[in-house]
Amino acid sequence: MNFTGSNILSVDQFDIDSIQTIFAIADRMQPYARRQKRTKVLDGAILGNLFFEPSTRTRVSFGTAFNLLGGEVRETTGMESSALAKGESLYDTARVLSSYSDVIAMRHPKSGAVAEFAEGSRVPVINGGDGANEHPTQALLDLYTIKKELAYHGHGVDGMHICMMGDLKFGRTVHSLSRLLAMYKDIRFTLISPRELAMPDSVLDVLANAGHHVTITDQVSGSSDADIVYQTRIQQERFTTPQEADLYRGKFRLNSEIYTKHYKPNTVIMHPLPRDSRAEANELDNDLNQNPNLAIFRQADNGVLIRMALFALTLGVAEQVEKYECDVNWYSSKPSGY
Amino acid sequence: MNFTGSNILSVDQFDIDSIQTIFAIADRMQPYARRQKRTKVLDGAILGNLFFEPSTRTRVSFGTAFNLLGGEVRETTGMESSALAKGESLYDTARVLSSYSDVIAMRHPKSGAVAEFAEGSRVPVINGGDGANEHPTQALLDLYTIKKELAYHGHGVDGMHICMMGDLKFGRTVHSLSRLLAMYKDIRFTLISPRELAMPDSVLDVLANAGHHVTITDQVSGSSDADIVYQTRIQQERFTTPQEADLYRGKFRLNSEIYTKHYKPNTVIMHPLPRDSRAEANELDNDLNQNPNLAIFRQADNGVLIRMALFALTLGVAEQVEKYECDVNWYSSKPSGY
Amino acid sequence: MNFTGSNILSVDQFDIDSIQTIFAIADRMQPYARRQKRTKVLDGAILGNLFFEPSTRTRVSFGTAFNLLGGEVRETTGMESSALAKGESLYDTARVLSSYSDVIAMRHPKSGAVAEFAEGSRVPVINGGDGANEHPTQALLDLYTIKKELAYHGHGVDGMHICMMGDLKFGRTVHSLSRLLAMYKDIRFTLISPRELAMPDSVLDVLANAGHHVTITDQVSGSSDADIVYQTRIQQERFTTPQEADLYRGKFRLNSEIYTKHYKPNTVIMHPLPRDSRAEANELDNDLNQNPNLAIFRQADNGVLIRMALFALTLGVAEQVEKYECDVNWYSSKPSGY
Repeated sequence: MNFTGSNILSVDQFDIDSIQTIFAIADRMQPYARRQKRTKVLDGAILGNLFFEPSTRTRVSFGTAFNLLGGEVRETTGMESSALAKGESLYDTARVLSSYSDVIAMRHPKSGAVAEFAEGSRVPVINGGDGANEHPTQALLDLYTIKKELAYHGHGVDGMHICMMGDLKFGRTVHSLSRLLAMYKDIRFTLISPRELAMPDSVLDVLANAGHHVTITDQVSGSSDADIVYQTRIQQERFTTPQEADLYRGKFRLNSEIYTKHYKPNTVIMHPLPRDSRAEANELDNDLNQNPNLAIFRQADNGVLIRMALFALTLGVAEQVEKYECDVNWYSSKPSGY
Repeated sequence: MNFTGSNILSVDQFDIDSIQTIFAIADRMQPYARRQKRTKVLDGAILGNLFFEPSTRTRVSFGTAFNLLGGEVRETTGMESSALAKGESLYDTARVLSSYSDVIAMRHPKSGAVAEFAEGSRVPVINGGDGANEHPTQALLDLYTIKKELAYHGHGVDGMHICMMGDLKFGRTVHSLSRLLAMYKDIRFTLISPRELAMPDSVLDVLANAGHHVTITDQVSGSSDADIVYQTRIQQERFTTPQEADLYRGKFRLNSEIYTKHYKPNTVIMHPLPRDSRAEANELDNDLNQNPNLAIFRQADNGVLIRMALFALTLGVAEQVEKYECDVNWYSSKPSGY
Repeated sequence: MNFTGSNILSVDQFDIDSIQTIFAIADRMQPYARRQKRTKVLDGAILGNLFFEPSTRTRVSFGTAFNLLGGEVRETTGMESSALAKGESLYDTARVLSSYSDVIAMRHPKSGAVAEFAEGSRVPVINGGDGANEHPTQALLDLYTIKKELAYHGHGVDGMHICMMGDLKFGRTVHSLSRLLAMYKDIRFTLISPRELAMPDSVLDVLANAGHHVTITDQVSGSSDADIVYQTRIQQERFTTPQEADLYRGKFRLNSEIYTKHYKPNTVIMHPLPRDSRAEANELDNDLNQNPNLAIFRQADNGVLIRMALFALTLGVAEQVEKYECDVNWYSSKPSGY
């Protein structure tokens, strides 16, 4: 696809080539994000960061990505109670707000709202999550993380084995990631969840049609050669009774003991964050925090790189980033990561 | 008037010369707002964007205008519940907050609050709306839009015919605009509203004293040679019963059919936005969206130019804008407008 | 102490030398804050301004300080309801959010939360107030103001006489300031408060151990040779009955008449702000607003200098500030202060 001037609304708009393009640019963003140097390629450009639903991490990640390219950020948070109460259409909102920036990142609680907004917008729109529908930058950063983590261990994405665990029914993240992974070859998916929270057929069909090998189970055991374990949250309100939820929650927990028992030494641990760290959560325990295979914070770091790449591509400056490079003259101790 | 270091609080502080000055600077801001080039004339300057009442459009428009001149924006939104509860005066708030910026744009729900704040401020203050009182940048962008739209059709403001329609009693916008238009010559005003929502005598007196020709009616017909139709919202709560409001609302509706029937082909359509686009609104229909005479989004665009001009004037850099010019190196598809 | 890369969490981490270092840098920040010139030493750096509890003044002061050094600000305000409800730990929040900036300023309603966050952070964290615990930049700006005000009158901090008045029990400000002042020599403290709101023993012990002279009283009279009177708020809810509070409030009021009667002509008046300016407040009256000894707004100005100094020190650029200097080309009428 030609990125310049395009909207980024759904993972479905990417083919394997466009993903490779995004990842290649993301790789080149690393020295700027790690403060080895900086770039002013978007000096003077303005991001409209429109978060009609709160999401501190995603919002700040987009804003920081734009700042790292040298641009300015104008921000809106919270539902637009006043204009909504006055009955303004998303089309009108888009016509007006898009005249205030060069590119827009937008989150909205309603499925389809970002695409509807994009129709009225005069500048490219990047979807930062629209309800239960799509969150393409999260899917891209997850895939990018998988690719980098596996590369560190000398593997590629083709032929790998990934376990997805927890609530696979309502987790927007694992659906989009699965659709992206489907474009690769010979992947083994082990999908571990309570039966009530199994991966939807629509996603399973995509994986089957692409010829991947899928195992569906409610048992953690049996995935000892997984390269990646992608843990998600199990939410109590999805079950008939809280007791039932608690039963399941304990079963799909990941902690140091369970990890050592069920997985091979270098299995990479991922999670979309935020994770529930309360004692009763039984989700992904803090005793794994010092485990080098815990990739959850590298995921967050990679999110900045992916968003930088998408801004550079949609604004057509990907090839000029190095041209506007300059030195970093302040103290920095950013970790070097993988 | 000498703009450098001055507050912009009310339309009453302008004479025809100062308006011409603002508009001449606004014209010169167009290439920067349309991204043909950019300027760093206010690189390093700080705008304090204080919105003690929510108004996404106006807030972002001010912030973007400052960014487009190269400056930084520090923002405050929402009522200052904590400090207010502690009984802080507007004078104290102004003394403190004005030390954090080079110029302030401020909106406040209370009439007169911005002027009161300005007395304590150590930097120029631009009124972004203070309750039912004033919203001078809106009035200026409306007048600027009228001037540009008419110029496109080969006319001037003197001698034109403008219809103002809807709620003319509570609409701050049409009052301020009328006071500005009063400074021009031989304008015909057709003021269309329910009798309960007629233009106040104070405004009518200003128009009469300046020798303009005013027709007051509750009928849409009879204004077929209008150059401008300025539509406003009719709010249900202004009437004794909802039924009465609905009756009126239908009557003052503007849609493609009504426009074609009652107005000449090039009558410019304006509205202060946001407009109510719900089916039952009967205000300004979406079927006019593709009509080239619909100027409502050009109004929003012009708001950025007017605010850029006011910042440049109050900070004394209007003559240096071109000196700090540089190239835009990213993709842009901003419409060229009129 | 070595500031580069360090957190600023508590006044207890400073010795007299490190305070002198901060103040020396703050002095050098003055021409930039007063707009005689500007600096781009932190051009491209990003401040994460995380205010999990509202505080407009402190938040904007940190943001402005960073802008004045040339940097960008990414901001978060309000409690993180979503992530908290999902049970995210402060450690996780810190791991993620610290990857989005070069330095963090943080306020949190819970005592100890900023220090806990700092343990997970990958960049230096500056405490902007954590509940009843610490607010080190306020204590530093108070001490810096005392030093500058006394220097203007030809005195030093050693040997001075300071009155602290009002609620000395719950006022975080006066506790931290007292602990900083304890490092100087031969200071006379007159602590004026209702008995119910007396200075805690923990603070009194620090002052006694350092050999300072402390007088505890509930009478305003008898402090006529004070160099500084530091007024604080008396809050009604601290008393058994509102009537009792009103009784006290009147007694510890400071206005022009009381000032003239009880203090020598050049006694400097300070207050942590915001002050209660309502007629019934009886706190610090507006009739002192034109008195040149009223230093309350200079305190706010000095806060920007202190925060600039701390950013420059923690990011290791204090010695490069002048190197990145440039001209201010816009209108400015910032007062010259003392």
